Order: sequence, then C-alpha cells, then structure tokens
Amino acid sequence: MREVLVIGIGAGDPDQLTIEAVKALGRLDAAFLVDKGDEKRDLTDLRRQLLKQYAPGARIVTISDPPRDRAATQYSGAVDDWRRKRAAAFREVIENELTETQTGGFLVWGDPALFDSTIGVLDDIDGVDFSYSVIPGISSVSTLAARHRIGLNRVGRAVQITTGRRLADQGMPADVDDLVVMLDARTAYQHVTDDVDIYWGAYLGTPDEILIQGRLAETKDQIDAVRAAARASKGWIMDTYLLRRRD
Amino acid sequence: MREVLVIGIGAGDPDQLTIEAVKALGRLDAAFLVDKGDEKRDLTDLRRQLLKQYAPGARIVTISDPPRDRAATQYSGAVDDWRRKRAAAFREVIENELTETQTGGFLVWGDPALFDSTIGVLDDIDGVDFSYSVIPGISSVSTLAARHRIGLNRVGRAVQITTGRRLADQGMPADVDDLVVMLDARTAYQHVTDDVDIYWGAYLGTPDEILIQGRLAETKDQIDAVRAAARASKGWIMDTYLLRRRD
Repeated sequence: MREVLVIGIGAGDPDQLTIEAVKALGRLDAAFLVDKGDEKRDLTDLRRQLLKQYAPGARIVTISDPPRDRAATQYSGAVDDWRRKRAAAFREVIENELTETQTGGFLVWGDPALFDSTIGVLDDIDGVDFSYSVIPGISSVSTLAARHRIGLNRVGRAVQITTGRRLADQGMPADVDDLVVMLDARTAYQHVTDDVDIYWGAYLGTPDEILIQGRLAETKDQIDAVRAAARASKGWIMDTYLLRRRD
Repeated sequence: MREVLVIGIGAGDPDQLTIEAVKALGRLDAAFLVDKGDEKRDLTDLRRQLLKQYAPGARIVTISDPPRDRAATQYSGAVDDWRRKRAAAFREVIENELTETQTGGFLVWGDPALFDSTIGVLDDIDGVDFSYSVIPGISSVSTLAARHRIGLNRVGRAVQITTGRRLADQGMPADVDDLVVMLDARTAYQHVTDDVDIYWGAYLGTPDEILIQGRLAETKDQIDAVRAAARASKGWIMDTYLLRRRD
C-alpha cells in the first residue's frame, strides 16, 4: 500500500528536526511541498534545504495551495470548502506520484497536531488506498516558551492555546490564566484589557527571530511597531505569544 | 560563567531527540539526573543510555528528589516547599560540580515548558552565577496526538491543557471543546459526564506504549482496567489523554 508520512519539521531551525524526522525524510520517494505563494518563499526554501540534506533521493512535488476566501463571513464554511479542494489536490499527488509500494511525505512546520490542517485533509481523502503516520515536531509554542525561558503553564494551573480570532471575539478566558495565541493576523492583544504580561515572538527558530516581553499595557505599542516594521521588511510575518495573567 | 542547559529529551523514544538536543548533550561537562526513586527506574535508565550515546564525556551527577508532601491539603504550598528544597539541591550541584567555565545539563522528559518544574526551580536559585538556556522537546501531548493521528484542536477552536486535579475539581470547561489532561493520578475522566471522546495513551514513545480511544462513556472502564493492570505490572504509569466534545 502507498505510505504517507506527515513529518513535523520544527518551527524554523533545521536543528529542531528530531532523529525520527531525519529517518523519515530518508525514507521518502517523494516529498510533497504545499506552495503558499511568493510571500512565504523563505519557508519553502528552507524546506528544500532540509530535503537536499536529508532526503536527497526524494522527488519534490509542489502542490499549489487552493485559494482561500479569507473575507468570507462564515469562517468555518470557507475553511471546509478550502479543505475539500486541498483533499482533492492531496489525493491527486498520492495517487499519481507514488507507486503502490512507495512512500511520500508532507513536511509540516511546527507540530502537525497544532493548528495545521494536514491530518484533517488526509482523513477526508476517499478513493485511493494509503496508510499514514504522524511524526511529532517542535511547535512554535514550545519554541516561544524555550526562548523566553518560561513554562507555558504555572504550577497546578491550565494553559489554553487559541487563535487571534477567538481572542478578539471572546477576550481573555475567565478560567485560565495563561493563554497562547496563534494565527493572530489582527493583533488582537491590542484589545485585551486584563492585567497580563505578554511573551511575544516572531520568526521563531529562524535567524530573524524577534522576542519581546513585558506588561501588556506597557509593551503592546512597541510590539505593534516592531511587528509592522518586520512585516514590511520581509513581506510576511509569523508570530505567536503567551498572555499571562499577573498575580 | 557557569552554563546550564535545560534539555527536552522527548516523551520516551530516544529518536525523539532533536539535533539541537544531541548537540547540547555533546557539550555537557556534567549531566544532572534527578532521581525520583525506584518506581521510575526505567526512566532513569533510559536517560543514562542517552548520555552514554550522546554525552560520553559528561560526568553523571544524581540529585535525590526532595520528598514531597502529596497528602498536603494546600497543594500549591506543598509544591512551593518542595521547590525550595529542589532549588537548594540544584544550586549545590551547579556550584560544586561545575567550574566557572563548564556546562551542566538537566535532561527533562517531554518539553521543559509543559508541566515541568526545572525552569521555575532554576529561576529560584540565588547566590551562584550561571546562565541558562532551554532546548524545547517533543512533549507527551504531541506524541499522544501523533499516535492517534489527530490534531489537538479543531479548526478555529481552542485546546486547553490541564491537570487531573483541575478536571476533578472543575469538570470539563464550558468554553473549550478539546481538553488535554496530564498528571492524572486519580482517573478524573471517570467522573466526566459530558458527551466526549477520549484519546488515551500511556508510556508514550516507549516500547510499552498503550493507546485506547473511543466514546468516554463506553471506554472509561476499559481504560481503568488496562491502566490498573499496566501499573501493577510495571510499578508505575505515566498517561495522558485528550477529551474531545462530540459535535
């Protein structure tokens, strides 16, 4: 049967690859790269470097990411539609780029379990026989905490990981004192009025990494300025942060 | 200055080491192993194997874990007292086992950012000069998700990571549909009445790994039985699970 490996490759530092991921890359007959367009070209280039080093025998197959209607009012409806298109694109490469005894791999930034759609899309595929397994990776969340030398949770307490959209809609949850926010294109932290510290990081694990921490009220404008400048300079930004309620 | 590395070594599979962790192990003059007593001897042995392979030149220094009053009614008070004793023990090895230009390392299971006290204890140390950095690792939470081939969160939704004690006290949170539970010595899932699926795993990443999933109401007694048998047979258990509210 065709075999597919979903390989977590870490947050951006090639040394965040696990030995398990290195071995998995070495087994690939084909590597599937989802191309998200020019603005994240650096990220595609980094994956190509990893493949050159650890999977020199693998054919590289580029999948064009289906366009996604980011303006749709029904967020999860737009995501469903986009996932259907993505499932069709994934199915096509699994069926046509692998013989029945070959192994293909998807290289996923961070950890495939956290805010990544690859597993869900593979579950949606019908009509082609394949098995798949998942190799966990170092997430940007773990990297954020390591760089700031903090735990994600405090003793005996919980941590929640959420999206910028949810933070913008619902604010800081009442029952949790530590909140990690991913995929925040709107700088939702600007509107948080709780007395929290922020631990912010951008381009985590890469040479462009930026870290800022401080009391949110005193730090948020600095983060806004740094974030806007970095985005303008590189053309894209990936950032993550922890909001920690002050005791 | 003395340098200390807090190295996440993954959930139990030696191949979950990152290249960064392998490099860090290779730099150690001394490796500090916290001995938690006989019941988790397998875990100590695995760390010794990693050191033999990746840090053959490092001296191994064992730190006896201070006894912890698990029966205390003031949970966080007991933890504070235990952390103070641990800080004194850590300070002693950093001061006495490292010269001023040497590097020592703490090997931490999983990810040092998640339900581990090493970073907090290092922050509490006074009176000896040292710098430290953190190398993120693959957590048991990431491993659980990878083995079950699931995401931790669902599209656009949050995931919360909490303790068995909190789940027992507060039940399933209202605002989150996906809840990861760690350190559950009490099988708190037994008392959850919400309609949820459970994705359970024990000894994740090791040859003894056990996985069970299903609707909680139909699966919890099986998990109890498997858990009790495994604990009796090995003398200890480490398990983690995700509760996922059914749509």
